[in-house]
Amino acid sequence: MKIQVALDRVSLERGIEIAKKAESYVDIIEIGTSLIKDYGLEAIRQIRAVFPGKAILADYKTMDEGEYEFRAAFDNGADIATVMGVASWPTLEACYRVAKEYSRDLMIDLMETSWERVAALQTFEEAIFCFHTPRDAPKGEIDRKLGSFCANFPGIRRLAVAGGIKLNDISLLHAFPVEIVIIGSTISKAVNPAEAAQRAKQAARVERGVE
Amino acid sequence: MKIQVALDRVSLERGIEIAKKAESYVDIIEIGTSLIKDYGLEAIRQIRAVFPGKAILADYKTMDEGEYEFRAAFDNGADIATVMGVASWPTLEACYRVAKEYSRDLMIDLMETSWERVAALQTFEEAIFCFHTPRDAPKGEIDRKLGSFCANFPGIRRLAVAGGIKLNDISLLHAFPVEIVIIGSTISKAVNPAEAAQRAKQAARVERGVE
Repeated sequence: MKIQVALDRVSLERGIEIAKKAESYVDIIEIGTSLIKDYGLEAIRQIRAVFPGKAILADYKTMDEGEYEFRAAFDNGADIATVMGVASWPTLEACYRVAKEYSRDLMIDLMETSWERVAALQTFEEAIFCFHTPRDAPKGEIDRKLGSFCANFPGIRRLAVAGGIKLNDISLLHAFPVEIVIIGSTISKAVNPAEAAQRAKQAARVERGVE
Repeated sequence: MKIQVALDRVSLERGIEIAKKAESYVDIIEIGTSLIKDYGLEAIRQIRAVFPGKAILADYKTMDEGEYEFRAAFDNGADIATVMGVASWPTLEACYRVAKEYSRDLMIDLMETSWERVAALQTFEEAIFCFHTPRDAPKGEIDRKLGSFCANFPGIRRLAVAGGIKLNDISLLHAFPVEIVIIGSTISKAVNPAEAAQRAKQAARVERGVE
């Protein structure tokens, strides 16, 4: 299971500091929506410059103007960009097409997306589907919720999980075909982000041997 | 009817140029989602500095982290910020609460929002509801679509309309209780943005006498 550290609700300088501490233990650095909306493309450019060889996700949460936003994210150094599952179908198609054109990845954020829509979204076979509990919503029972989701959509090939994931939650995810676990404040707000990232990485490795 | 000029998919410099040309004819300057995602809060700060007395809308299209995003928008000079009607209910509540706390305005972007959800959203009585055709979707028949919407939600007190509005569409809107018409490329991509804004303002005044 890959670890994605989400940098959110911090200054860009602090975000880069956290990412430097966590770098050895994480596979993907996420430039959170708040960093995008606070700093714009400068956030992507700076993080790309500091981490030239690392996978970077820009959490655009695109709702419209799919082509414009995805080109901007990729042109400035992102490897993965996100679109909302609740966006209009032409927006989703535009994002998927641009991701293919750049040979980069599209993540579909399923926050507030109906299961009927998720069923339809499976046509975007190469997309990463992000099962996401919104930050503003109540937490808990990730394994029960995810179990129900996976039972309904066994055809999804690439799965990510996000939304208030704690270190203790990670071991629960091994029961499911999770490719990426997205961890935010558990690392970024930790007294020792490096240690939190290391513990996350260990938990992601458990029961799998070598990843 | 108020005119809101949307600045989108241009550089911040060009956006400010367009806004200067259109200023005398428009009531609200919209910092489009693309300017927010390209330049971050700097876009709001610069436009606020150039237009100290003008109403400014930040098209945040918030999907999560409602409190953080709305405080950021308002703290940096926006008078109005937008949240998606498809966002989670706690996100919408957070945005509404913060807007009230700052005595500023909340616009709910109804793109891709089910009518069942719109019915529920009417509880946010002081919000501005934005009937929005996404940029990526087909255009046309604004009067038919809006007529159907208004017939279903007569209780909405503050209504805005957006999405590929042309100068010829504006006169059609007089049949409905539209408070704000949002005009993007019709002004921003016009050879003469000032003239386009002036014509929009004239069309918005027709049949109403003095606004």
